[in-house]
Amino acid sequence: MKFSVPKLVRFHHCDPAGIVFYPQFFYLLHEVQEDFLAHIGFPEHKLIAGGTGVPIVDLKTEFLGMCRNGDQLTITLELTRIGGSSMGMQYEILGDTGAVRLRAHGVVVYSEVPHGKAVRIPDELRSALLPYLKTTSPGDT
Amino acid sequence: MKFSVPKLVRFHHCDPAGIVFYPQFFYLLHEVQEDFLAHIGFPEHKLIAGGTGVPIVDLKTEFLGMCRNGDQLTITLELTRIGGSSMGMQYEILGDTGAVRLRAHGVVVYSEVPHGKAVRIPDELRSALLPYLKTTSPGDT
Amino acid sequence: MKFSVPKLVRFHHCDPAGIVFYPQFFYLLHEVQEDFLAHIGFPEHKLIAGGTGVPIVDLKTEFLGMCRNGDQLTITLELTRIGGSSMGMQYEILGDTGAVRLRAHGVVVYSEVPHGKAVRIPDELRSALLPYLKTTSPGDT
Amino acid sequence: MKFSVPKLVRFHHCDPAGIVFYPQFFYLLHEVQEDFLAHIGFPEHKLIAGGTGVPIVDLKTEFLGMCRNGDQLTITLELTRIGGSSMGMQYEILGDTGAVRLRAHGVVVYSEVPHGKAVRIPDELRSALLPYLKTTSPGDT
Repeated sequence: MKFSVPKLVRFHHCDPAGIVFYPQFFYLLHEVQEDFLAHIGFPEHKLIAGGTGVPIVDLKTEFLGMCRNGDQLTITLELTRIGGSSMGMQYEILGDTGAVRLRAHGVVVYSEVPHGKAVRIPDELRSALLPYLKTTSPGDT
Repeated sequence: MKFSVPKLVRFHHCDPAGIVFYPQFFYLLHEVQEDFLAHIGFPEHKLIAGGTGVPIVDLKTEFLGMCRNGDQLTITLELTRIGGSSMGMQYEILGDTGAVRLRAHGVVVYSEVPHGKAVRIPDELRSALLPYLKTTSPGDT
Repeated sequence: MKFSVPKLVRFHHCDPAGIVFYPQFFYLLHEVQEDFLAHIGFPEHKLIAGGTGVPIVDLKTEFLGMCRNGDQLTITLELTRIGGSSMGMQYEILGDTGAVRLRAHGVVVYSEVPHGKAVRIPDELRSALLPYLKTTSPGDT
Repeated sequence: MKFSVPKLVRFHHCDPAGIVFYPQFFYLLHEVQEDFLAHIGFPEHKLIAGGTGVPIVDLKTEFLGMCRNGDQLTITLELTRIGGSSMGMQYEILGDTGAVRLRAHGVVVYSEVPHGKAVRIPDELRSALLPYLKTTSPGDT
Protein backbone atom coordinates (compact mmCIF):
# COMPACT_ATOMS: atom_id res chain seq x y z
CA MET A 1 0.00 0.00 0.00
CA LYS A 2 1.26 3.46 -0.91
CA PHE A 3 0.59 6.53 1.18
CA SER A 4 -0.26 9.40 -1.13
CA VAL A 5 -0.86 13.08 -0.44
CA PRO A 6 -1.40 16.16 -2.63
CA LYS A 7 0.98 19.09 -2.17
CA LEU A 8 0.87 22.50 -3.81
CA VAL A 9 4.06 24.19 -4.98
CA ARG A 10 4.07 27.47 -3.06
CA PHE A 11 5.70 30.76 -3.96
CA HIS A 12 8.19 30.28 -1.13
CA HIS A 13 9.38 26.96 -2.56
CA CYS A 14 10.57 28.67 -5.74
CA ASP A 15 13.82 30.34 -6.65
CA PRO A 16 14.86 33.16 -9.00
CA ALA A 17 14.79 30.66 -11.87
CA GLY A 18 11.05 30.20 -11.15
CA ILE A 19 11.38 26.54 -10.13
CA VAL A 20 11.42 24.73 -6.81
CA PHE A 21 14.73 25.35 -5.06
CA TYR A 22 15.96 21.80 -4.49
CA PRO A 23 16.26 21.84 -0.66
CA GLN A 24 12.59 22.81 -0.56
CA PHE A 25 11.73 19.37 -1.97
CA PHE A 26 13.02 17.92 1.28
CA TYR A 27 10.65 20.15 3.23
CA LEU A 28 7.85 18.65 1.18
CA LEU A 29 9.11 15.10 1.74
CA HIS A 30 9.36 15.78 5.46
CA GLU A 31 5.78 17.09 5.44
CA VAL A 32 4.74 13.79 3.84
CA GLN A 33 6.60 11.88 6.57
CA GLU A 34 4.67 13.95 9.15
CA ASP A 35 1.38 13.36 7.35
CA PHE A 36 2.14 9.64 7.16
CA LEU A 37 3.06 9.26 10.83
CA ALA A 38 -0.05 11.20 11.84
CA HIS A 39 -2.17 9.05 9.49
CA ILE A 40 -1.00 5.79 11.07
CA GLY A 41 -1.58 7.17 14.55
CA PHE A 42 1.94 8.19 15.60
CA PRO A 43 2.17 11.97 15.03
CA GLU A 44 5.80 13.03 14.91
CA HIS A 45 5.30 15.88 17.39
CA LYS A 46 4.01 13.36 19.93
CA LEU A 47 6.94 11.01 19.29
CA ILE A 48 9.33 13.92 19.89
CA ALA A 49 7.44 15.06 22.99
CA GLY A 50 7.84 11.48 24.18
CA GLY A 51 11.59 11.52 23.63
CA THR A 52 12.01 9.75 20.29
CA GLY A 53 12.35 10.83 16.68
CA VAL A 54 13.34 9.51 13.28
CA PRO A 55 16.49 11.34 12.15
CA ILE A 56 17.73 10.56 8.66
CA VAL A 57 21.04 8.83 8.05
CA ASP A 58 21.09 8.27 4.30
CA LEU A 59 19.30 9.91 1.39
CA LYS A 60 19.50 9.36 -2.34
CA THR A 61 17.60 11.65 -4.67
CA GLU A 62 17.07 11.81 -8.41
CA PHE A 63 15.69 15.10 -9.70
CA LEU A 64 13.81 14.10 -12.84
CA GLY A 65 11.80 17.18 -13.77
CA MET A 66 11.24 20.76 -12.75
CA CYS A 67 8.36 21.88 -10.57
CA ARG A 68 6.97 25.38 -10.77
CA ASN A 69 4.99 27.80 -8.58
CA GLY A 70 1.35 26.71 -8.56
CA ASP A 71 1.97 23.11 -9.66
CA GLN A 72 -0.28 20.60 -7.96
CA LEU A 73 1.90 17.65 -7.00
CA THR A 74 1.13 14.20 -5.65
CA ILE A 75 3.71 12.68 -3.34
CA THR A 76 3.74 8.98 -2.56
CA LEU A 77 5.52 7.08 0.17
CA GLU A 78 6.23 3.38 0.53
CA LEU A 79 8.50 1.60 2.97
CA THR A 80 11.24 -0.52 1.44
CA ARG A 81 12.36 -2.04 4.72
CA ILE A 82 11.44 -2.13 8.40
CA GLY A 83 14.49 -3.17 10.39
CA GLY A 84 15.17 -3.34 14.10
CA SER A 85 15.38 0.42 14.45
CA SER A 86 15.78 1.70 10.87
CA MET A 87 13.32 2.13 8.04
CA GLY A 88 13.73 2.61 4.32
CA MET A 89 11.36 5.22 2.87
CA GLN A 90 10.79 5.62 -0.85
CA TYR A 91 9.19 8.81 -2.10
CA GLU A 92 7.98 9.83 -5.53
CA ILE A 93 6.84 13.28 -6.52
CA LEU A 94 4.43 13.26 -9.44
CA GLY A 95 3.47 16.32 -11.47
CA ASP A 96 0.05 17.24 -12.81
CA THR A 97 0.42 14.81 -15.71
CA GLY A 98 1.51 11.92 -13.51
CA ALA A 99 5.14 12.09 -14.66
CA VAL A 100 7.66 11.43 -11.89
CA ARG A 101 9.53 14.63 -11.08
CA LEU A 102 11.60 13.37 -8.17
CA ARG A 103 12.43 9.99 -6.66
CA ALA A 104 14.09 9.71 -3.27
CA HIS A 105 15.04 6.96 -0.89
CA GLY A 106 15.79 7.80 2.70
CA VAL A 107 16.86 5.71 5.66
CA VAL A 108 15.71 6.96 9.04
CA VAL A 109 16.50 5.54 12.46
CA TYR A 110 14.07 5.41 15.34
CA SER A 111 16.16 7.13 18.03
CA GLU A 112 16.14 8.89 21.33
CA VAL A 113 16.20 12.66 20.88
CA PRO A 114 18.22 14.78 21.11
CA HIS A 115 21.16 12.40 21.64
CA GLY A 116 20.36 10.11 18.75
CA LYS A 117 20.80 6.68 20.31
CA ALA A 118 18.99 4.11 18.11
CA VAL A 119 16.19 2.25 19.83
CA ARG A 120 14.07 -0.68 18.69
CA ILE A 121 10.87 0.31 16.85
CA PRO A 122 8.04 -0.50 19.30
CA ASP A 123 5.67 -3.28 18.25
CA GLU A 124 2.62 -0.99 17.97
CA LEU A 125 4.44 1.36 15.63
CA ARG A 126 5.82 -1.60 13.68
CA SER A 127 2.31 -3.00 13.15
CA ALA A 128 1.09 0.38 11.94
CA LEU A 129 3.98 0.65 9.49
CA LEU A 130 3.64 -2.85 8.07
CA PRO A 131 0.81 -2.22 5.56
CA TYR A 132 3.06 0.28 3.77
CA LEU A 133 5.98 -2.12 3.32
CA LYS A 134 6.62 -2.91 -0.35
CA THR A 135 6.03 -6.57 -0.92
CA THR A 136 8.92 -6.68 -3.36
CA SER A 137 11.22 -5.31 -0.66
CA PRO A 138 14.82 -6.48 -1.00
CA GLY A 139 14.45 -7.86 2.54
CA ASP A 140 15.71 -7.07 5.96
CA THR A 141 19.48 -6.83 5.79
CA MET B 1 42.70 21.29 -4.55
CA LYS B 2 39.78 21.48 -2.16
CA PHE B 3 37.65 24.56 -1.73
CA SER B 4 36.99 25.07 1.96
CA VAL B 5 34.79 27.55 3.79
CA PRO B 6 33.72 28.00 7.43
CA LYS B 7 30.00 28.05 8.19
CA LEU B 8 28.27 28.70 11.49
CA VAL B 9 25.23 26.66 12.51
CA ARG B 10 22.56 29.28 13.03
CA PHE B 11 19.49 29.19 15.23
CA HIS B 12 17.30 29.00 12.13
CA HIS B 13 19.04 25.84 10.90
CA CYS B 14 17.93 23.94 14.00
CA ASP B 15 14.80 22.01 14.83
CA PRO B 16 12.86 21.21 17.99
CA ALA B 17 15.33 18.41 18.70
CA GLY B 18 18.04 21.11 18.86
CA ILE B 19 19.96 19.82 15.84
CA VAL B 20 20.22 20.95 12.24
CA PHE B 21 17.01 20.07 10.38
CA TYR B 22 18.34 17.98 7.52
CA PRO B 23 17.07 20.07 4.56
CA GLN B 24 18.98 23.01 6.05
CA PHE B 25 22.24 21.17 5.31
CA PHE B 26 21.43 21.59 1.63
CA TYR B 27 21.07 25.35 2.11
CA LEU B 28 24.57 25.29 3.55
CA LEU B 29 25.88 23.17 0.66
CA HIS B 30 24.26 25.54 -1.82
CA GLU B 31 25.89 28.49 -0.05
CA VAL B 32 29.23 26.72 -0.53
CA GLN B 33 28.44 26.24 -4.23
CA GLU B 34 27.72 29.99 -4.44
CA ASP B 35 30.92 30.83 -2.54
CA PHE B 36 32.90 28.51 -4.81
CA LEU B 37 31.51 29.91 -8.06
CA ALA B 38 32.12 33.47 -6.82
CA HIS B 39 35.66 32.50 -5.75
CA ILE B 40 36.56 31.18 -9.21
CA GLY B 41 35.12 34.27 -10.88
CA PHE B 42 31.70 33.03 -12.00
CA PRO B 43 29.21 34.24 -9.38
CA GLU B 44 26.00 32.25 -9.63
CA HIS B 45 23.79 35.35 -9.67
CA LYS B 46 25.68 36.57 -12.75
CA LEU B 47 25.36 33.18 -14.46
CA ILE B 48 21.60 33.29 -13.83
CA ALA B 49 21.32 36.90 -14.97
CA GLY B 50 23.08 35.72 -18.14
CA GLY B 51 20.58 32.93 -18.70
CA THR B 52 22.37 29.86 -17.34
CA GLY B 53 22.40 27.98 -14.07
CA VAL B 54 23.49 24.70 -12.55
CA PRO B 55 20.39 22.77 -11.46
CA ILE B 56 20.99 19.53 -9.61
CA VAL B 57 19.96 16.17 -11.08
CA ASP B 58 21.32 13.66 -8.58
CA LEU B 59 22.28 13.86 -4.92
CA LYS B 60 23.51 11.23 -2.48
CA THR B 61 23.96 12.16 1.15
CA GLU B 62 25.24 10.35 4.22
CA PHE B 63 24.39 12.00 7.53
CA LEU B 64 27.20 10.92 9.83
CA GLY B 65 26.84 13.10 12.89
CA MET B 66 24.58 15.71 14.41
CA CYS B 67 25.28 19.42 14.20
CA ARG B 68 23.99 21.82 16.83
CA ASN B 69 23.19 25.52 17.14
CA GLY B 70 26.45 27.46 17.46
CA ASP B 71 28.69 24.75 15.97
CA GLN B 72 31.46 26.12 13.80
CA LEU B 73 31.62 23.90 10.72
CA THR B 74 34.07 23.63 7.86
CA ILE B 75 32.64 22.62 4.52
CA THR B 76 34.85 21.37 1.72
CA LEU B 77 34.11 20.94 -1.97
CA GLU B 78 35.97 19.01 -4.63
CA LEU B 79 34.90 18.15 -8.15
CA THR B 80 34.78 14.46 -8.99
CA ARG B 81 34.12 14.99 -12.69
CA ILE B 82 33.83 17.76 -15.26
CA GLY B 83 31.84 16.44 -18.22
CA GLY B 84 30.45 18.12 -21.32
CA SER B 85 27.75 19.92 -19.39
CA SER B 86 27.60 18.12 -16.04
CA MET B 87 29.81 18.24 -12.98
CA GLY B 88 30.20 15.97 -9.98
CA MET B 89 30.54 17.85 -6.71
CA GLN B 90 31.65 16.20 -3.49
CA TYR B 91 31.02 17.96 -0.21
CA GLU B 92 32.11 17.18 3.31
CA ILE B 93 30.91 18.93 6.44
CA LEU B 94 33.40 18.77 9.28
CA GLY B 95 32.60 19.61 12.89
CA ASP B 96 34.76 21.47 15.40
CA THR B 97 36.89 18.39 16.05
CA GLY B 98 37.42 17.65 12.36
CA ALA B 99 35.08 14.66 12.33
CA VAL B 100 33.01 14.33 9.16
CA ARG B 101 29.36 15.04 9.96
CA LEU B 102 27.96 14.82 6.44
CA ARG B 103 29.21 13.64 3.07
CA ALA B 104 27.31 14.44 -0.11
CA HIS B 105 27.83 13.96 -3.81
CA GLY B 106 25.78 16.00 -6.23
CA VAL B 107 25.60 16.09 -10.01
CA VAL B 108 24.68 19.44 -11.51
CA VAL B 109 24.13 20.31 -15.14
CA TYR B 110 25.13 23.56 -16.74
CA SER B 111 21.81 24.57 -18.32
CA GLU B 112 19.76 27.34 -19.78
CA VAL B 113 17.35 28.77 -17.20
CA PRO B 114 14.48 28.53 -16.67
CA HIS B 115 13.86 25.81 -19.25
CA GLY B 116 16.73 23.58 -18.23
CA LYS B 117 18.25 22.64 -21.58
CA ALA B 118 21.79 21.36 -20.96
CA VAL B 119 24.52 23.39 -22.62
CA ARG B 120 28.26 22.79 -22.90
CA ILE B 121 30.33 24.27 -20.07
CA PRO B 122 32.17 27.23 -21.63
CA ASP B 123 35.97 26.90 -21.85
CA GLU B 124 36.64 29.79 -19.47
CA LEU B 125 34.45 28.28 -16.77
CA ARG B 126 35.99 24.86 -17.44
CA SER B 127 39.49 26.23 -16.92
CA ALA B 128 38.44 27.86 -13.67
CA LEU B 129 36.90 24.59 -12.43
CA LEU B 130 39.85 22.38 -13.35
CA PRO B 131 42.10 23.04 -10.31
CA TYR B 132 39.34 21.63 -8.08
CA LEU B 133 39.03 18.32 -9.95
CA LYS B 134 40.09 15.37 -7.81
CA THR B 135 43.12 13.77 -9.43
CA THR B 136 41.82 10.36 -8.47
CA SER B 137 38.60 11.05 -10.33
CA PRO B 138 36.89 7.93 -11.69
CA GLY B 139 37.07 9.60 -15.11
CA ASP B 140 34.70 11.16 -17.57
CA THR B 141 31.95 8.67 -18.28
CA MET C 1 -16.44 38.81 5.21
CA LYS C 2 -13.33 37.13 6.58
CA PHE C 3 -11.28 34.63 4.64
CA SER C 4 -10.30 31.81 6.96
CA VAL C 5 -8.04 28.82 6.46
CA PRO C 6 -6.67 26.07 8.73
CA LYS C 7 -2.89 25.64 8.93
CA LEU C 8 -0.91 23.02 10.78
CA VAL C 9 2.28 23.95 12.64
CA ARG C 10 4.89 21.75 11.01
CA PHE C 11 8.15 20.46 12.43
CA HIS C 12 10.07 22.74 10.08
CA HIS C 13 8.34 25.84 11.46
CA CYS C 14 9.77 25.22 14.92
CA ASP C 15 13.03 26.20 16.53
CA PRO C 16 15.29 24.74 19.23
CA ALA C 17 12.98 26.26 21.84
CA GLY C 18 10.19 24.06 20.42
CA ILE C 19 8.06 26.97 19.20
CA VAL C 20 7.43 28.54 15.81
CA PHE C 21 10.49 30.53 14.76
CA TYR C 22 9.00 33.95 14.16
CA PRO C 23 9.92 34.43 10.46
CA GLN C 24 8.06 31.20 9.76
CA PHE C 25 4.82 32.94 10.73
CA PHE C 26 5.28 35.13 7.67
CA TYR C 27 5.56 32.03 5.48
CA LEU C 28 2.20 30.99 6.89
CA LEU C 29 0.71 34.46 6.29
CA HIS C 30 2.03 34.42 2.74
CA GLU C 31 0.44 30.99 2.21
CA VAL C 32 -2.85 32.52 3.33
CA GLN C 33 -2.38 35.37 0.85
CA GLU C 34 -1.81 32.75 -1.87
CA ASP C 35 -4.85 30.75 -0.75
CA PHE C 36 -6.94 33.92 -0.70
CA LEU C 37 -5.90 35.11 -4.15
CA ALA C 38 -6.54 31.63 -5.58
CA HIS C 39 -9.91 31.52 -3.82
CA ILE C 40 -11.08 34.78 -5.40
CA GLY C 41 -9.91 33.66 -8.83
CA PHE C 42 -6.55 35.45 -9.13
CA PRO C 43 -3.88 32.86 -8.23
CA GLU C 44 -0.65 34.61 -7.37
CA HIS C 45 1.44 32.41 -9.68
CA LYS C 46 -0.76 33.51 -12.60
CA LEU C 47 -0.46 37.18 -11.60
CA ILE C 48 3.35 36.79 -11.53
CA ALA C 49 3.39 34.90 -14.84
CA GLY C 50 1.38 37.85 -16.20
CA GLY C 51 3.92 40.37 -14.97
CA THR C 52 2.38 41.68 -11.76
CA GLY C 53 2.71 40.88 -8.08
CA VAL C 54 1.86 42.26 -4.66
CA PRO C 55 5.12 43.06 -2.84
CA ILE C 56 4.81 44.20 0.75
CA VAL C 57 5.81 47.71 1.83
CA ASP C 58 4.76 47.85 5.47
CA LEU C 59 4.13 45.22 8.12
CA LYS C 60 3.20 45.49 11.77
CA THR C 61 3.04 42.35 13.88
CA GLU C 62 2.10 41.58 17.46
CA PHE C 63 3.20 38.18 18.72
CA LEU C 64 0.62 37.34 21.38
CA GLY C 65 1.19 33.69 22.15
CA MET C 66 3.48 30.82 21.31
CA CYS C 67 2.63 28.17 18.73
CA ARG C 68 4.09 24.67 18.95
CA ASN C 69 4.77 21.74 16.62
CA GLY C 70 1.48 19.99 15.84
CA ASP C 71 -0.78 22.92 16.77
CA GLN C 72 -3.78 23.27 14.49
CA LEU C 73 -4.14 26.98 13.73
CA THR C 74 -6.83 29.00 12.02
CA ILE C 75 -5.66 32.05 10.10
CA THR C 76 -8.07 34.79 9.06
CA LEU C 77 -7.65 37.59 6.57
CA GLU C 78 -9.66 40.76 6.08
CA LEU C 79 -8.88 43.78 3.96
CA THR C 80 -8.69 47.09 5.81
CA ARG C 81 -8.38 49.17 2.68
CA ILE C 82 -8.43 48.89 -1.11
CA GLY C 83 -6.67 51.91 -2.58
CA GLY C 84 -5.60 52.76 -6.11
CA SER C 85 -2.81 50.25 -6.13
CA SER C 86 -2.29 49.36 -2.46
CA MET C 87 -4.23 47.13 -0.10
CA GLY C 88 -4.30 46.80 3.66
CA MET C 89 -4.39 43.18 4.84
CA GLN C 90 -5.17 42.21 8.42
CA TYR C 91 -4.31 38.73 9.61
CA GLU C 92 -5.06 36.91 12.82
CA ILE C 93 -3.64 33.56 13.85
CA LEU C 94 -5.87 31.69 16.27
CA GLY C 95 -4.78 28.67 18.29
CA ASP C 96 -6.78 25.55 19.06
CA THR C 97 -8.72 27.32 21.81
CA GLY C 98 -9.57 30.32 19.64
CA ALA C 99 -7.12 32.62 21.42
CA VAL C 100 -5.34 35.07 19.12
CA ARG C 101 -1.66 34.12 18.91
CA LEU C 102 -0.57 36.69 16.34
CA ARG C 103 -2.06 39.78 14.76
CA ALA C 104 -0.49 41.40 11.72
CA HIS C 105 -1.30 44.20 9.35
CA GLY C 106 0.44 44.40 6.01
CA VAL C 107 0.29 46.85 3.17
CA VAL C 108 0.97 45.42 -0.27
CA VAL C 109 1.16 47.23 -3.58
CA TYR C 110 -0.10 45.85 -6.85
CA SER C 111 3.04 46.27 -8.98
CA GLU C 112 4.84 45.24 -12.09
CA VAL C 113 7.42 42.57 -11.36
CA PRO C 114 10.34 42.47 -11.06
CA HIS C 115 10.82 46.24 -11.22
CA GLY C 116 8.15 47.10 -8.70
CA LYS C 117 6.36 49.99 -10.42
CA ALA C 118 2.94 50.43 -8.78
CA VAL C 119 -0.01 49.94 -11.11
CA ARG C 120 -3.73 50.44 -10.61
CA ILE C 121 -5.59 47.39 -9.32
CA PRO C 122 -7.67 46.18 -12.31
CA ASP C 123 -11.44 46.45 -11.90
CA GLU C 124 -12.02 42.68 -12.02
CA LEU C 125 -9.55 42.06 -9.22
CA ARG C 126 -11.02 45.02 -7.29
CA SER C 127 -14.52 43.52 -7.50
CA ALA C 128 -13.25 40.17 -6.29
CA LEU C 129 -11.48 41.81 -3.33
CA LEU C 130 -14.42 43.96 -2.25
CA PRO C 131 -16.40 41.37 -0.27
CA TYR C 132 -13.42 41.00 2.08
CA LEU C 133 -13.14 44.72 2.89
CA LYS C 134 -13.92 45.44 6.54
CA THR C 135 -16.99 47.63 6.69
CA THR C 136 -15.52 49.54 9.60
CA SER C 137 -12.46 50.33 7.52
CA PRO C 138 -10.79 53.62 8.42
CA GLY C 139 -11.31 54.63 4.80
CA ASP C 140 -9.22 55.26 1.75
CA THR C 141 -6.50 57.71 2.68
CA MET D 1 27.20 52.92 19.07
CA LYS D 2 25.76 50.93 16.19
CA PHE D 3 26.50 47.28 15.62
CA SER D 4 27.04 46.72 11.91
CA VAL D 5 27.58 43.56 9.89
CA PRO D 6 27.83 42.77 6.17
CA LYS D 7 25.40 40.19 4.75
CA LEU D 8 25.24 38.78 1.25
CA VAL D 9 21.89 38.21 -0.46
CA ARG D 10 21.96 34.50 -1.23
CA PHE D 11 20.14 32.61 -3.96
CA HIS D 12 17.91 30.98 -1.33
CA HIS D 13 16.72 34.36 -0.06
CA CYS D 14 15.19 35.19 -3.44
CA ASP D 15 11.83 34.45 -4.96
CA PRO D 16 10.50 33.91 -8.48
CA ALA D 17 10.42 37.68 -8.93
CA GLY D 18 14.20 37.66 -8.41
CA ILE D 19 14.08 39.68 -5.18
CA VAL D 20 14.39 38.80 -1.52
CA PHE D 21 11.22 37.06 -0.36
CA TYR D 22 10.18 39.24 2.53
CA PRO D 23 10.20 36.65 5.37
CA GLN D 24 13.84 35.99 4.47
CA PHE D 25 14.68 39.51 5.65
CA PHE D 26 13.75 38.38 9.14
CA TYR D 27 16.18 35.48 8.89
CA LEU D 28 18.85 38.06 8.11
CA LEU D 29 17.77 40.27 11.03
CA HIS D 30 17.84 37.27 13.34
CA GLU D 31 21.35 36.43 12.13
CA VAL D 32 22.35 39.98 13.06
CA GLN D 33 20.81 39.51 16.52
CA GLU D 34 22.87 36.30 16.86
CA ASP D 35 26.02 38.05 15.64
CA PHE D 36 25.38 40.91 18.06
CA LEU D 37 24.80 38.71 21.10
CA ALA D 38 27.93 36.68 20.27
CA HIS D 39 29.90 39.92 19.79
CA ILE D 40 28.97 41.24 23.24
CA GLY D 41 29.82 37.89 24.84
CA PHE D 42 26.36 36.32 25.22
CA PRO D 43 25.97 33.91 22.29
CA GLU D 44 22.31 33.08 21.82
CA HIS D 45 22.92 29.33 21.68
CA LYS D 46 24.52 29.54 25.13
CA LEU D 47 21.62 31.61 26.49
CA ILE D 48 19.20 28.97 25.19
CA ALA D 49 21.33 26.10 26.54
CA GLY D 50 21.14 27.94 29.87
CA GLY D 51 17.37 28.17 29.74
CA THR D 52 16.72 31.69 28.52
CA GLY D 53 16.01 33.30 25.18
CA VAL D 54 14.78 36.53 23.65
CA PRO D 55 11.48 35.83 21.86
CA ILE D 56 9.97 38.71 19.92
CA VAL D 57 6.66 40.28 20.93
CA ASP D 58 6.33 43.21 18.53
CA LEU D 59 7.79 44.00 15.14
CA LYS D 60 7.27 46.92 12.78
CA THR D 61 8.88 46.84 9.37
CA GLU D 62 9.08 49.25 6.45
CA PHE D 63 10.22 47.72 3.18
CA LEU D 64 11.86 50.62 1.36
CA GLY D 65 13.67 49.03 -1.56
CA MET D 66 14.19 45.73 -3.26
CA CYS D 67 17.22 43.54 -2.65
CA ARG D 68 18.45 41.11 -5.27
CA ASN D 69 20.53 37.92 -5.45
CA GLY D 70 24.20 38.83 -5.02
CA ASP D 71 23.61 42.22 -3.36
CA GLN D 72 26.08 43.00 -0.63
CA LEU D 73 24.10 44.48 2.25
CA THR D 74 25.10 46.16 5.49
CA ILE D 75 22.79 45.65 8.43
CA THR D 76 22.95 47.86 11.49
CA LEU D 77 21.48 47.38 14.93
CA GLU D 78 20.93 49.86 17.75
CA LEU D 79 18.96 49.46 20.93
CA THR D 80 16.16 51.95 21.46
CA ARG D 81 15.39 50.85 25.00
CA ILE D 82 16.63 48.47 27.69
CA GLY D 83 13.79 47.81 30.11
CA GLY D 84 13.46 45.42 33.02
CA SER D 85 13.16 42.40 30.78
CA SER D 86 12.41 43.83 27.33
CA MET D 87 14.59 45.50 24.74
CA GLY D 88 13.84 47.64 21.70
CA MET D 89 15.97 46.75 18.69
CA GLN D 90 16.20 48.96 15.61
CA TYR D 91 17.57 47.50 12.43
CA GLU D 92 18.44 49.08 9.11
CA ILE D 93 19.37 47.22 5.95
CA LEU D 94 21.52 49.29 3.61
CA GLY D 95 22.19 48.40 -0.01
CA ASP D 96 25.45 48.74 -1.92
CA THR D 97 24.90 52.46 -2.41
CA GLY D 98 24.11 53.10 1.25
CA ALA D 99 20.40 53.62 0.63
CA VAL D 100 18.15 52.18 3.32
CA ARG D 101 16.26 49.19 1.93
CA LEU D 102 14.48 48.11 5.12
CA ARG D 103 13.92 49.57 8.55
CA ALA D 104 12.57 47.45 11.39
CA HIS D 105 11.92 47.87 15.07
CA GLY D 106 11.47 44.81 17.23
CA VAL D 107 10.72 44.33 20.89
CA VAL D 108 12.13 41.18 22.45
CA VAL D 109 11.70 39.91 25.97
CA TYR D 110 14.37 38.16 27.97
CA SER D 111 12.47 35.02 28.98
CA GLU D 112 12.73 31.51 30.22
CA VAL D 113 12.48 29.01 27.39
CA PRO D 114 10.44 27.22 26.30
CA HIS D 115 7.64 28.54 28.52
CA GLY D 116 8.26 32.20 27.88
CA LYS D 117 8.08 33.67 31.38
CA ALA D 118 9.74 37.09 31.32
CA VAL D 119 12.76 37.42 33.58
CA ARG D 120 14.89 40.42 34.52
CA ILE D 121 17.86 41.02 32.21
CA PRO D 122 20.92 40.07 34.31
CA ASP D 123 23.29 42.92 35.19
CA GLU D 124 26.21 41.52 33.19
CA LEU D 125 24.14 41.27 30.05
CA ARG D 126 22.69 44.73 30.75
CA SER D 127 26.18 46.23 30.96
CA ALA D 128 27.17 44.59 27.70
CA LEU D 129 24.05 45.94 25.96
CA LEU D 130 24.40 49.50 27.23
CA PRO D 131 26.97 50.81 24.73
CA TYR D 132 24.48 50.08 21.92
CA LEU D 133 21.62 52.07 23.47
CA LYS D 134 20.68 55.07 21.33
CA THR D 135 21.32 58.22 23.34
CA THR D 136 18.23 59.81 21.83
CA SER D 137 16.10 56.91 23.04
CA PRO D 138 12.48 57.87 23.73
CA GLY D 139 13.04 56.59 27.28
CA ASP D 140 11.99 53.69 29.40
CA THR D 141 8.20 53.46 29.31
